Amino acid sequence: MPVGTQATVKAMTPQEIAGIGFKLILGNTYHLHLRPGEELISRAGGLHKFQGWEGALLTDSGGFQVFSLKGLRRIGSDGVEFQSHIDGSRHMFTPESVMLTEEHLGADIIMAFDECAPAKCDMDYARQAMDRTHRWAERCIAAHAAAGGKAIGGWDQALFGIVQGATYRELREESARVLTEMDFPGYAVGGLAVGETAEERDEATDWCTAILPQNKPRYLMGVGTPIDLLHAVERGIDMFDCVLPTRNARNAQILTSEGPINIRNAKFVEDFTPLDPNCRCEVCLRHTRAYVRHLFKVEEILGARLATYHNLAFYGNLMENIRQSIATNSFLEFKREFEERYSRSRSTELDLEE
Amino acid sequence: MPVGTQATVKAMTPQEIAGIGFKLILGNTYHLHLRPGEELISRAGGLHKFQGWEGALLTDSGGFQVFSLKGLRRIGSDGVEFQSHIDGSRHMFTPESVMLTEEHLGADIIMAFDECAPAKCDMDYARQAMDRTHRWAERCIAAHAAAGGKAIGGWDQALFGIVQGATYRELREESARVLTEMDFPGYAVGGLAVGETAEERDEATDWCTAILPQNKPRYLMGVGTPIDLLHAVERGIDMFDCVLPTRNARNAQILTSEGPINIRNAKFVEDFTPLDPNCRCEVCLRHTRAYVRHLFKVEEILGARLATYHNLAFYGNLMENIRQSIATNSFLEFKREFEERYSRSRSTELDLEE
Repeated sequence: MPVGTQATVKAMTPQEIAGIGFKLILGNTYHLHLRPGEELISRAGGLHKFQGWEGALLTDSGGFQVFSLKGLRRIGSDGVEFQSHIDGSRHMFTPESVMLTEEHLGADIIMAFDECAPAKCDMDYARQAMDRTHRWAERCIAAHAAAGGKAIGGWDQALFGIVQGATYRELREESARVLTEMDFPGYAVGGLAVGETAEERDEATDWCTAILPQNKPRYLMGVGTPIDLLHAVERGIDMFDCVLPTRNARNAQILTSEGPINIRNAKFVEDFTPLDPNCRCEVCLRHTRAYVRHLFKVEEILGARLATYHNLAFYGNLMENIRQSIATNSFLEFKREFEERYSRSRSTELDLEE
Repeated sequence: MPVGTQATVKAMTPQEIAGIGFKLILGNTYHLHLRPGEELISRAGGLHKFQGWEGALLTDSGGFQVFSLKGLRRIGSDGVEFQSHIDGSRHMFTPESVMLTEEHLGADIIMAFDECAPAKCDMDYARQAMDRTHRWAERCIAAHAAAGGKAIGGWDQALFGIVQGATYRELREESARVLTEMDFPGYAVGGLAVGETAEERDEATDWCTAILPQNKPRYLMGVGTPIDLLHAVERGIDMFDCVLPTRNARNAQILTSEGPINIRNAKFVEDFTPLDPNCRCEVCLRHTRAYVRHLFKVEEILGARLATYHNLAFYGNLMENIRQSIATNSFLEFKREFEERYSRSRSTELDLEE
């Protein structure tokens, strides 16, 4: 899922996102609650219509954002009180209020309100946060059932549960079991990509997917690099969201089949080849590294646009190749070849720009 | 002509510009000389290829920009010495150097190097600047003839002359006569839209077009608002360039058939109608004022994109309607109706935003 935090995948039109081949994008409940507010979006006909997106939508629960507001928030058994990062205004998220907000937004998949504990928290805190997440998951199920499982606009919404438990095996397995018993139509693994090592993440993912049902979507939240995605797919993950392709694009990092490059680098000044020689996206068919570098050097909006388009096409293409390799029973071979090729330019990744 | 100062019409792809229906865009010699430099662009295959634009291109001469660098530049009979606005580096533009730069860039239409005098200069200075412009025009003709009238890439380039003379009738008429004798394939009226009143501009335009040949393109540089365009067309002008539709778009000003609106205005918060109810552009077909307002309020790049696209479509549509009205001999009627409708929301234009 490309990330469309504020009712837009940054720098992209909905038509471009669909044109690349994406069928599902993510919106952020925390940001949309603050601006423009879920009630305005509801009156517009829901988030799909508000932003002109004809594909499917998933909204997160705001849990990750609210728990990132260190110092600005107070956690109680009922929910979380927090201050807006924009104007300091006070807000309260409870499982029930988040369900109502997500019902107003009207995404096809909505996430339960969870507590995302820090990567390095002790086991006591991790257990507290996990237990709270489970109690809140029950309350989300009840609240959404009371709404008939439907958005304010009247269409069905699938409520996904979120596994927590930090990097503790005992907690991750307990959380996966408890949530599986709640019988959600899909599950996310939350609380990762928050500072743990890649090995810790792989391990925690393994513990969860060993228990979560194989016949339902399994979604690893906030992950990650192309290599991270391959490792997670190997562990049974089906869905991802990550700001990496779009955020890094705006910082001039271009993803290529031979690894990421910083397009501001002086060595691209007269490089009249495509961003990625192995890519057939609209940008690679039409534009050169030298041109995109120029756009970044002179701070033109089109630079961010072309880089974002290409990086998303790169991710879309990666996921498509993964699906094909699974269908032809050659995923591990594809993974090995991709990793080998992708690491080729690693050594040049840190080259200084001009 | 949409203005593509730094080898991009700001926030737009070449495909979008062509999709709106534009066949000719402008590039700025001063900016492109500084970054990325005309030699790099020449090695890329010229400005068309560098920016992926399949239509026609016009480059200005840099005269307007260089003479705007007050305090940073020194004018001599040979040319102008100036300092870059970016890094203070010293550069020299002469008629011969500008021709060579424009031959490297390779536009289809290139402008002679002129001196653009300020609107309020006295007649002595205006005459000096005009005489210098005429001598430089001769030198541009000679230099471009020596290059076979061709770009470095080998294709033909049409060199247009620029009429100067500030707001003095005697000078404007003399300049138009002198340049007409030089037999350029097209002519521009320069030195307007630099601080004079609309009446002064209309008058000066009249003096020029009364003399400049009707069977060659006549181009009013740097103009203007939709109303300005109608007034100039009435006076025989065929071509325009202006940053207004793109620059104002980035500042949230949306052009509509009922006048410009500031889309940040609080009254649009729940306005789920198109930017302009009478527009059929891609943005108006898909998006609402409420959505575009939201994008500007949360500072999303897509806001500038959608506003720019629409404003350019508005200008493209205006020029198309002008051409059609001329073809059907109903231009004055079209002009009157457009002006009447366009002034409707004038009173609300200055409404404060939320």
